[in-house]
Amino acid sequence: MKSLNLDWRFVLVRPRNPLNIGAAARAMANFGFREMVVVAPYSPVWQETRSAVGAEEIVTKARAVENLVEAIGDAALVVGTTAGSRRNLDRNLIGLPDFPAWLRQRKAAGRVAVLFGSEKTGLSNQHLSYCHALVRIPTVVNCPSMNLGQAVAVCAYELAKAGLVPTRPPRLTVHLSDPASAQSLDHLFDRAARVLDQVGYLKPKSRGATLLKLRRLILDLELTNYDARALGGILAQIEWKILKSKS
Amino acid sequence: MKSLNLDWRFVLVRPRNPLNIGAAARAMANFGFREMVVVAPYSPVWQETRSAVGAEEIVTKARAVENLVEAIGDAALVVGTTAGSRRNLDRNLIGLPDFPAWLRQRKAAGRVAVLFGSEKTGLSNQHLSYCHALVRIPTVVNCPSMNLGQAVAVCAYELAKAGLVPTRPPRLTVHLSDPASAQSLDHLFDRAARVLDQVGYLKPKSRGATLLKLRRLILDLELTNYDARALGGILAQIEWKILKSKS
Repeated sequence: MKSLNLDWRFVLVRPRNPLNIGAAARAMANFGFREMVVVAPYSPVWQETRSAVGAEEIVTKARAVENLVEAIGDAALVVGTTAGSRRNLDRNLIGLPDFPAWLRQRKAAGRVAVLFGSEKTGLSNQHLSYCHALVRIPTVVNCPSMNLGQAVAVCAYELAKAGLVPTRPPRLTVHLSDPASAQSLDHLFDRAARVLDQVGYLKPKSRGATLLKLRRLILDLELTNYDARALGGILAQIEWKILKSKS
Repeated sequence: MKSLNLDWRFVLVRPRNPLNIGAAARAMANFGFREMVVVAPYSPVWQETRSAVGAEEIVTKARAVENLVEAIGDAALVVGTTAGSRRNLDRNLIGLPDFPAWLRQRKAAGRVAVLFGSEKTGLSNQHLSYCHALVRIPTVVNCPSMNLGQAVAVCAYELAKAGLVPTRPPRLTVHLSDPASAQSLDHLFDRAARVLDQVGYLKPKSRGATLLKLRRLILDLELTNYDARALGGILAQIEWKILKSKS
């Protein structure tokens, strides 16, 4: 099988336990992954983790960022992990064993961010709304929730087994025909939300839910950089027209 | 694919870290495994693990035994896990992804003991000599050694994914045509070693190495209960003859 040109980033969202961060890094290293980003770690925990004796190079090189958008901005594909089956966010729910085939079928390329939620609460609906797809680790019904480091280990194992981890990071050059990055989709979303606000489409009561749906809709369009630029231009023009007519 | 009638036991050999024992139990529970046996745990560690708040049912039900033979005596198949590729014990070295197919091809049945070594040293050559096969977790060369709980998680995931974990433990009835248990092979080995001692085949210098080879040879014969009984009878007869001729 042709190998895909993927650059993996594992994103731990609000992890609380330094041992788990270290364990996640160890599992990544075991299977050839390199890049970890940690979103909003509890500060003392993060210091402790980074300074731990024998901390993996992955941890010492990991970036800590304030919010999810910073962590996934430059990713072409964002995938959330979940152990349960209760989530229903109109997202593709892919069993982990089927994930490699899904990537191949989609001809995925570029940077892929894989999100892991905190030990207690997993990923929130807000986090999930940034994901193109959800990957479900097939745990049993009566004990679904996995330890963070073990969830990372199992995902890393499956991806490495499928030959999807390049021995060195690919050079990523951005083409207009490539999938739009999470950041440019985020800009597009902001612009669309502003327009909907200006035309009075968003009602106070349902605003939050509608915006979640809008974000998903934008993700599902699988836009290229070209599409995102074109759509952004159209929205800018609409916004300009509305503002002008108001003045 | 026809599902195999297997009853799984995960055996942790000399684990040192109570957190790892707990994490291993959690991973087992996540994928539907039930039985853990711990060989020679450090006593305070074992007490701490068992009394931990939220300890998995698997841990509270786990047996602690003095030595490996007690842990695997009634197993029809004993499999060691290893992350490195340096071991060379004339054992079948099976990649974890190929392990389910290997089990099917062998038509494995009955109790299977999967051994996990300690965090620091893994399984010793002595432990490995009790194994019918070694399963290698395909970690990368420059970071091969896995965290115990994560190694258990990855193995549990692969076996569950392959549909090899029965939803309830099978009833095991022993037939003469079934693979001989580790315990009866151990008796056979003891008998064979005694005979080799009596005929002067074992030299003081090479005694240990020769006995390791003998154990492996006996494992590789893949004896049934019938075979083990027949061979045991022959060895008993030889032993009797030798002792008689000496008296």
